[in-house]
Amino acid sequence: MIRLECDYSEGAHPLIMERLLQSNLEQTIGYGEDPYCERADDLIKQACGVPAADVHFLVGGTQTNTTVISSILRPHQGVVAAESGHINVHESGAIEATGHKVLALPSADGKIRAAQVEALCLEHLNDPSREHMVQPGMVYVSQSTEKGTIYSRRELRELSKVCRRFELPLFMDGARLGYALAAEGNDLDLKEIARCCEVFYIGGTKVGALFGEAVVITAEKLKKDFRYLIKQKGGMLAKGRLLGIQFETLFQKDLYLEISKHAVELALHLREGLKTLGYSFLSESPTNQQFPILPDTLLRYLEKNYIFSFWAKPNDRQTAVRICTSWATPGEHIKQLLEDIRRFEADTPSNLSVQ
Amino acid sequence: MIRLECDYSEGAHPLIMERLLQSNLEQTIGYGEDPYCERADDLIKQACGVPAADVHFLVGGTQTNTTVISSILRPHQGVVAAESGHINVHESGAIEATGHKVLALPSADGKIRAAQVEALCLEHLNDPSREHMVQPGMVYVSQSTEKGTIYSRRELRELSKVCRRFELPLFMDGARLGYALAAEGNDLDLKEIARCCEVFYIGGTKVGALFGEAVVITAEKLKKDFRYLIKQKGGMLAKGRLLGIQFETLFQKDLYLEISKHAVELALHLREGLKTLGYSFLSESPTNQQFPILPDTLLRYLEKNYIFSFWAKPNDRQTAVRICTSWATPGEHIKQLLEDIRRFEADTPSNLSVQ
Amino acid sequence: MIRLECDYSEGAHPLIMERLLQSNLEQTIGYGEDPYCERADDLIKQACGVPAADVHFLVGGTQTNTTVISSILRPHQGVVAAESGHINVHESGAIEATGHKVLALPSADGKIRAAQVEALCLEHLNDPSREHMVQPGMVYVSQSTEKGTIYSRRELRELSKVCRRFELPLFMDGARLGYALAAEGNDLDLKEIARCCEVFYIGGTKVGALFGEAVVITAEKLKKDFRYLIKQKGGMLAKGRLLGIQFETLFQKDLYLEISKHAVELALHLREGLKTLGYSFLSESPTNQQFPILPDTLLRYLEKNYIFSFWAKPNDRQTAVRICTSWATPGEHIKQLLEDIRRFEADTPSNLSVQ
Amino acid sequence: MIRLECDYSEGAHPLIMERLLQSNLEQTIGYGEDPYCERADDLIKQACGVPAADVHFLVGGTQTNTTVISSILRPHQGVVAAESGHINVHESGAIEATGHKVLALPSADGKIRAAQVEALCLEHLNDPSREHMVQPGMVYVSQSTEKGTIYSRRELRELSKVCRRFELPLFMDGARLGYALAAEGNDLDLKEIARCCEVFYIGGTKVGALFGEAVVITAEKLKKDFRYLIKQKGGMLAKGRLLGIQFETLFQKDLYLEISKHAVELALHLREGLKTLGYSFLSESPTNQQFPILPDTLLRYLEKNYIFSFWAKPNDRQTAVRICTSWATPGEHIKQLLEDIRRFEADTPSNLSVQ
Repeated sequence: MIRLECDYSEGAHPLIMERLLQSNLEQTIGYGEDPYCERADDLIKQACGVPAADVHFLVGGTQTNTTVISSILRPHQGVVAAESGHINVHESGAIEATGHKVLALPSADGKIRAAQVEALCLEHLNDPSREHMVQPGMVYVSQSTEKGTIYSRRELRELSKVCRRFELPLFMDGARLGYALAAEGNDLDLKEIARCCEVFYIGGTKVGALFGEAVVITAEKLKKDFRYLIKQKGGMLAKGRLLGIQFETLFQKDLYLEISKHAVELALHLREGLKTLGYSFLSESPTNQQFPILPDTLLRYLEKNYIFSFWAKPNDRQTAVRICTSWATPGEHIKQLLEDIRRFEADTPSNLSVQ
Repeated sequence: MIRLECDYSEGAHPLIMERLLQSNLEQTIGYGEDPYCERADDLIKQACGVPAADVHFLVGGTQTNTTVISSILRPHQGVVAAESGHINVHESGAIEATGHKVLALPSADGKIRAAQVEALCLEHLNDPSREHMVQPGMVYVSQSTEKGTIYSRRELRELSKVCRRFELPLFMDGARLGYALAAEGNDLDLKEIARCCEVFYIGGTKVGALFGEAVVITAEKLKKDFRYLIKQKGGMLAKGRLLGIQFETLFQKDLYLEISKHAVELALHLREGLKTLGYSFLSESPTNQQFPILPDTLLRYLEKNYIFSFWAKPNDRQTAVRICTSWATPGEHIKQLLEDIRRFEADTPSNLSVQ
Repeated sequence: MIRLECDYSEGAHPLIMERLLQSNLEQTIGYGEDPYCERADDLIKQACGVPAADVHFLVGGTQTNTTVISSILRPHQGVVAAESGHINVHESGAIEATGHKVLALPSADGKIRAAQVEALCLEHLNDPSREHMVQPGMVYVSQSTEKGTIYSRRELRELSKVCRRFELPLFMDGARLGYALAAEGNDLDLKEIARCCEVFYIGGTKVGALFGEAVVITAEKLKKDFRYLIKQKGGMLAKGRLLGIQFETLFQKDLYLEISKHAVELALHLREGLKTLGYSFLSESPTNQQFPILPDTLLRYLEKNYIFSFWAKPNDRQTAVRICTSWATPGEHIKQLLEDIRRFEADTPSNLSVQ
Repeated sequence: MIRLECDYSEGAHPLIMERLLQSNLEQTIGYGEDPYCERADDLIKQACGVPAADVHFLVGGTQTNTTVISSILRPHQGVVAAESGHINVHESGAIEATGHKVLALPSADGKIRAAQVEALCLEHLNDPSREHMVQPGMVYVSQSTEKGTIYSRRELRELSKVCRRFELPLFMDGARLGYALAAEGNDLDLKEIARCCEVFYIGGTKVGALFGEAVVITAEKLKKDFRYLIKQKGGMLAKGRLLGIQFETLFQKDLYLEISKHAVELALHLREGLKTLGYSFLSESPTNQQFPILPDTLLRYLEKNYIFSFWAKPNDRQTAVRICTSWATPGEHIKQLLEDIRRFEADTPSNLSVQ
């Protein structure tokens, strides 16, 4: 069985495992104050060009989103996000559980635009009943988005500008940041992201680590007491060095970007192969997540050997699925998948398949 | 200046004021355990045909919605409501502040349909990722709705049926219940509402009282410890008898319905008058709230003497406003308003006004 | 039956009722933006000597405590209070329901001391595990306290000083502020309170009003968006003028203080009478709440005509009760109570009663 | 430097590391639904003698406490715990952040007694103001406690009995359960714990794992939708098999108990050695945490080579410290520590040291 339904089916990059093993019986102080975390912290601040930033290591994405967002908002404020944003859809109401509404903006491609945020803010400010409504308090974006798309430099700068005009901290969920940085056509780097965002995180769980997300806080006023919040929200790992070791490894010799590139190359190879065969996609994705719309007959044929994620059912005969590559995906898997699809196509009268 | 922007511009029905005055220096036990509350409780249970129900008196609507909803839901559950529902729009995030997402359903007329609730529940149950999502935990409807419309008996019964099938308590926000019961074409009464809803409230603030909402809990399993919740959410009035006195007065000799009828008759009179003049409406409302779309020139003419609520701006030359009548609106006000509009129309070349 | 168990058994001062009646059918804007609220706001700022303060009117005490405290604290912070503080004991966990721990300090007399707050802060700051603990974020005091005692000017100034040193806003719950201002030996006035406290409220519910608490925010940084919070926590009364009318009346011609004095004089008269008879007290109270320890035989004798609050059971033969006077207590009631007690004492062999 | 300040200074048991390495590039389904978790689940249910229980794997202790407690309580309920309980002291207000008060009971030895819980419940039920107070909703105990002590079978059974009488689920925090099971004089086993507790967890973080806590829910009514809660509270590990692999390893061939015994033996060896030298202890601990009261002169001498946790300062010349052993502590470390202390004692005039 070949799993392509997500980017967290395997363990960690072998180099990480090696270092975890090497350090296993070493004794260090707990809760992220050890030398590994310190070095990882340094490497990340260097990579982001923000020596004055605060870096924190948390275990997972939902936890990180909850901790960051609840640390920023006052009780009457909400977080602006795309309708399809992870915090709005796939965190079991974690944000609301901390008391805050997700102010969801419509989005076809998973991104929100500066103009939408501006319109929302102006509408709020101009509403005579605004005190009876949730006040926009910050903005959340995912990079790459839940639909595989990425923000361009221009888009992010415009968002940042409008956010600063309305004093809304801009927060980037980078659970798949590696794959965004390695994406086709990407013109953003960590330094630009650090300039545009008041806070963001660099995802490890989906990009080479066993687990772990590195939060970078660039805005002075968001730094205060953040570790209390990590502890309260259950994100302070006792053996914090496990996070330090992993991020130190990922940020040495560009490993993070290198393994991300591998995943994206495979995904684009798959995308082009499917396009050649005439398939269309739910969204045009330059990253490791692809959302092809495939004939149900083909999916039945493939399900003996492959696992994808179900995504949507556009009509009776076709299904949109998510196919993910990751740092760990063997090139062989994608090659074989394309071959299997081509074989199926060759064996099937065309009117049965694509339609 | 004539205020028609809402239904809470005046104090209370004179009979209520009289009784508050009469009882003013009497001594009673606090927190709603006095004889006035007891009698009001009895009258309401009788009117609703539910002798076994629990009745509680709270001060205001947002407080009541928050208290009821947070008393029912578990932390991972959300409340299903129309997009335009008061809890989703106009309570400053009060529901989220207690930890719960409002699961908003699209609605053109302010109502949600049984089929929508069914589809939402099935979609949730069939989603393999449902444990990562907010679980529908109850359903909220407003009667009359924020758009002036009302649920019919058939609609409410269907909603109730689908709610019970999916074990979702059905909660009716009756802040304007009087005006719904008095509405043109209404075929619901309190007894039917009590049969269909696990919990609902009878609004006093907008229907003759200084303040106050009477919560009726019909479902056994929702009754437990509700008074702790009232206290916690700040709704337990020290001098609770003030609520008892008001509801006792409203539920003697049908006063509640009688004064509601007055408001609705005036609103319908206004509606027909405006229709005759060729104006259209945002929604077809059979209750005390009317949402006519009026020329901006007319509105400028009227604003010297009348106050309406701004509602929407459908185009450059027209504005939709909310005009409310209430138990206290003098017939004279509506008569004069129609006259003023007719005068304006007579004086204005038609192409300037209606277009 | 004579009720002396609390200070909210009656309605409102007759002058308030008169003005509510006079204005009853007048039309005003809702939610506290009417001329009555404006005038009450002015009168209160004048009385407190803080023209730049923000004044808000809420309905009840628990609601006010919850709204103020949750508007100030960040998620990892708690509110410091006396163990016996209303927020720690008698609000059904309202503060915790907004996410915050009450950091309770031991207190025999219901007051906390500057030295206690200082010790708590230093202990926290010096604890290497402090990030795993709740951070003190503000200080709550009641004036008068739940035990009837009052803070002196010196005590309040010292508290204020230590609070400012540790950047903890000082919040005074003034549900019974009138009775504190009228207390025997009191050397505080509203102006001094406004200088010492970042936020406090002037209680109406227990001091002449039907309901209502007037929050005064003196600290600039605590003012922002407070009305959103009032709305969210259910404290924004639709017919807000009801609060304005009441506080305008109370703050004209010193009515607030005058009616408070009446209550305190009666309470002290009772206290002295009981002392003369040899009874002791749970605490030495200079305000309207008295906590005498009475023989159970006497209590059984009195319970046919009087209602007190049970407070504590120090031993087998005696019970401590709370006896409250209020602005509405007729002098006759206290006179008769003392007579009844004297009669009982005269009729009872001394070894049966006091022991 | 030898670290003895806590039991989470090292990584994981070598067997766990080996298996993590072996399975590293294997593909499995995420979020704890993989075969490793299934097998660990089976092993744990078997060890606990509860085939019908639900087992869930979470990452850390604070997260687990928060998830379990908030899944059980209604909004007006609190959790009863010892004053020194981890949830009351060292979780940065995590429980309050979910809306619930910790109802702290005094405790000299870190344990609470059945009689205390009974008294609290009766006091609540008999209080006429109980609706204004937090209702006890469940009971939390730690085994071993934060003071190193353990509940005996009799104590736990009595607690369980009183909890069931008052319908309070009993929840055991087993962050150090291994060391309790291996403790001197322990007469509890997992089967008895499963009979007495409605829910408990078996700590991995401090007992041989990199991280991880295994929650066992024995009570039918507490099982519903627990995975939604894990997700919401940030405890659902994407690569859930990491938890499965660790607990499968720990529960094969009694490894969990075996490594716990190692730690306890060393701790008792240390305790006896210190006793022989005449030192006293903060509490009599039969587990891996020891709290000796040592002369400050000795501590200064030891601090070049050893790290302990500061615990308390009973007087000017002595300090109570926490010394922890763990599954990973080399016997050599304890031997050397005792030798160093003996050498110091020999070199020091007795009146300088112990006094």
